Amino acid sequence: MKLLVPTSLPLHPVLPEGVEAIAYDASAPVPDEHLAADALVVWGSSGADLATVAGRMPRLRWVQTLAAGPDVVLGAGFPDDVVVTAGTGLHDRPVTEHALALVLALVRRLPAAAAAQRRHHWAEELGGLQPLHPEGAVTTLLGARVLIWGFGSIGQTLAPLLHGLGARVSGVARTAGERSGFRVVAERDVDAELAATDVLVMILPATTTTRDALDAGRLAALPPHALVVNVGRGSTVDEPALVAALDEGRIAGAALDVTAEEPLPADSPLWEARNLLLTPHAAGGRPVGADELVAANVAALLAGRELRNVVER
Amino acid sequence: MKLLVPTSLPLHPVLPEGVEAIAYDASAPVPDEHLAADALVVWGSSGADLATVAGRMPRLRWVQTLAAGPDVVLGAGFPDDVVVTAGTGLHDRPVTEHALALVLALVRRLPAAAAAQRRHHWAEELGGLQPLHPEGAVTTLLGARVLIWGFGSIGQTLAPLLHGLGARVSGVARTAGERSGFRVVAERDVDAELAATDVLVMILPATTTTRDALDAGRLAALPPHALVVNVGRGSTVDEPALVAALDEGRIAGAALDVTAEEPLPADSPLWEARNLLLTPHAAGGRPVGADELVAANVAALLAGRELRNVVER
Ligand SMILES: NC(=O)c1ccc[n+]([C@@H]2O[C@H](COP(=O)([O-])OP(=O)(O)OC[C@H]3O[C@@H](n4cnc5c(N)ncnc54)[C@H](OP(=O)(O)O)[C@@H]3O)[C@@H](O)[C@H]2O)c1
Ligand SMILES: NC(=O)c1ccc[n+]([C@@H]2O[C@H](COP(=O)([O-])OP(=O)(O)OC[C@H]3O[C@@H](n4cnc5c(N)ncnc54)[C@H](OP(=O)(O)O)[C@@H]3O)[C@@H](O)[C@H]2O)c1
Repeated sequence: MKLLVPTSLPLHPVLPEGVEAIAYDASAPVPDEHLAADALVVWGSSGADLATVAGRMPRLRWVQTLAAGPDVVLGAGFPDDVVVTAGTGLHDRPVTEHALALVLALVRRLPAAAAAQRRHHWAEELGGLQPLHPEGAVTTLLGARVLIWGFGSIGQTLAPLLHGLGARVSGVARTAGERSGFRVVAERDVDAELAATDVLVMILPATTTTRDALDAGRLAALPPHALVVNVGRGSTVDEPALVAALDEGRIAGAALDVTAEEPLPADSPLWEARNLLLTPHAAGGRPVGADELVAANVAALLAGRELRNVVER
Repeated sequence: MKLLVPTSLPLHPVLPEGVEAIAYDASAPVPDEHLAADALVVWGSSGADLATVAGRMPRLRWVQTLAAGPDVVLGAGFPDDVVVTAGTGLHDRPVTEHALALVLALVRRLPAAAAAQRRHHWAEELGGLQPLHPEGAVTTLLGARVLIWGFGSIGQTLAPLLHGLGARVSGVARTAGERSGFRVVAERDVDAELAATDVLVMILPATTTTRDALDAGRLAALPPHALVVNVGRGSTVDEPALVAALDEGRIAGAALDVTAEEPLPADSPLWEARNLLLTPHAAGGRPVGADELVAANVAALLAGRELRNVVER
């Protein structure tokens, strides 16, 4: 069995005898001499480069993307009988860390502090003696109601940390029911949750059904002190509606690590939206545990067992 | 027994019969008609206002400050036989949250992202595919060596959260020995720790012995990728030395919630120091559990038992 592995990260899975790992450059299409491979590991390939080879790999049985979101691979047009597995789990800790950084930056008003610093202004209004729960603002996670929309692998890694900081955490997923000890509601019931949400964290994949999940109506359902963070995919937020909600003060602030178009065009209104923090898709991008996942899935493939993280198509 | 309570926060301790709570305005000295009180709760009084009355309260036996740092009360000149108790514990969670916000903002390079945002620049260098541990930079707490100098009530609340994010946490206190499951070294051995520190979090009280604890020599012992956070007291950091270390790139970044002089004068070099984040003493300022502490100490005083959080003088 020939397994194509990208050179875009150090990848050294322990492979059984008979499995040959062949390195390829992920910044270009897989070269013709390797198109007869049986399996393909993807990290950082463009959708266009994948589309170039998707229909030209006759022996291909399995594509393992190291990304948690399989959207780029799914859009490339691999035949239906090719099994696609995602990098679910590999990004839980880095994305959780970034999501927490963004939530805390908003809650602790770091952008306002930075603006004051640029003016050499000691912002008494942000520090000193203060109520724990001031009217109309969330300034601590202690007692804050946090809703995590997309309560999968990353969401369930983030939730205990927010809980440890004193937040009251609930989740939203496709199906309801307790997960990891947290209350989870079904997506069809999300509207009812929003009015009682102080901090909304979006961690949804990009699919046709998640497009604009956070739309104008749902933004309007949030209270004016609400803070919104998105570390999932940009397509899941209606960006013009978000900019309007921020600029009109209908929500208090937001932080986006992902945008509908990346890189974000220089003329996007997002750059200047009121109380919006942008990071350039910096949450993940550094898989942790990829060797183990690839090795486990190679072994499963050879043994005819079900692979880990198979993506429904 | 007459107990003076400040109006600077909502304070409603459950008090035994015979204890009369008398409200006073913390923005002025205790008025003459209340100088015969037996006990004084302090929150937000200036050192000058306390000094005005410190020698004029003949029946005073006990001063309870709600601040974790008793430095202002200790400096006011109350007679030696007056027991001073601190607000230790009341600020553990708010200060921990703020310290974590500052650590994560530095590690996740939020100031650099904000600077790029102001230029409408999608900073590829901060996001996308990246190594987990790039040469010469700390960009995640996963595996990072965090040293908490001042491993008391707040430090031991912060440590498990950093540990939960994957950091390897040690502490520094006056005496060595394991605390809350973490390795703690004695202050005289701190120099040996610094070279192997990625993130240094200072949570020291202001005393004569902690002045300039982080001085030029210790800053020089840190590696160039090190990040420094101070949520203790400004007097514990040699600020000119810190500015020099930052501006000369001898450490990678810092965040200060406290400064030697507060409010920070507009002409302080701190405002413009390279990669320095300032917040205006915003970490605490909102005691959690003050009612319970005051009630417990009133009961202890009446029963002749040892009070909680007695400050060595
Ligand atoms: N910013 C970054 O750098 C970065 C890095 C890694 C990942 N991500 C994004 O984060 C997303 C979530 O990652 P994860 O590892 O937590 O994924 P996951 O374990 O698959 O969880 C996805 C969650 O979204 C829910 N969901 C709602 N609608 C869905 C739909 N139409 N299709 C699939 N799931 C749906 C799922 O519900 P059920 O649980 O009920 O199925 C699940 O709770 C990824 O897809 C990726 O787009 C971003
Ligand atoms: N930024 C803010 O808004 C904010 C809010 C609250 C508190 N603070 C500051 O944070 C400080 C720490 O608070 P905490 O509640 O964690 O206090 P704590 O429980 O008393 O802990 C203080 C720590 O500092 C160590 N230390 C080193 N030198 C010391 C000395 N000369 N005197 C006393 N302790 C010394 C102590 O060592 P041992 O354990 O060996 O005694 C202990 O580990 C406070 O004093 C206050 O200045 C700041």
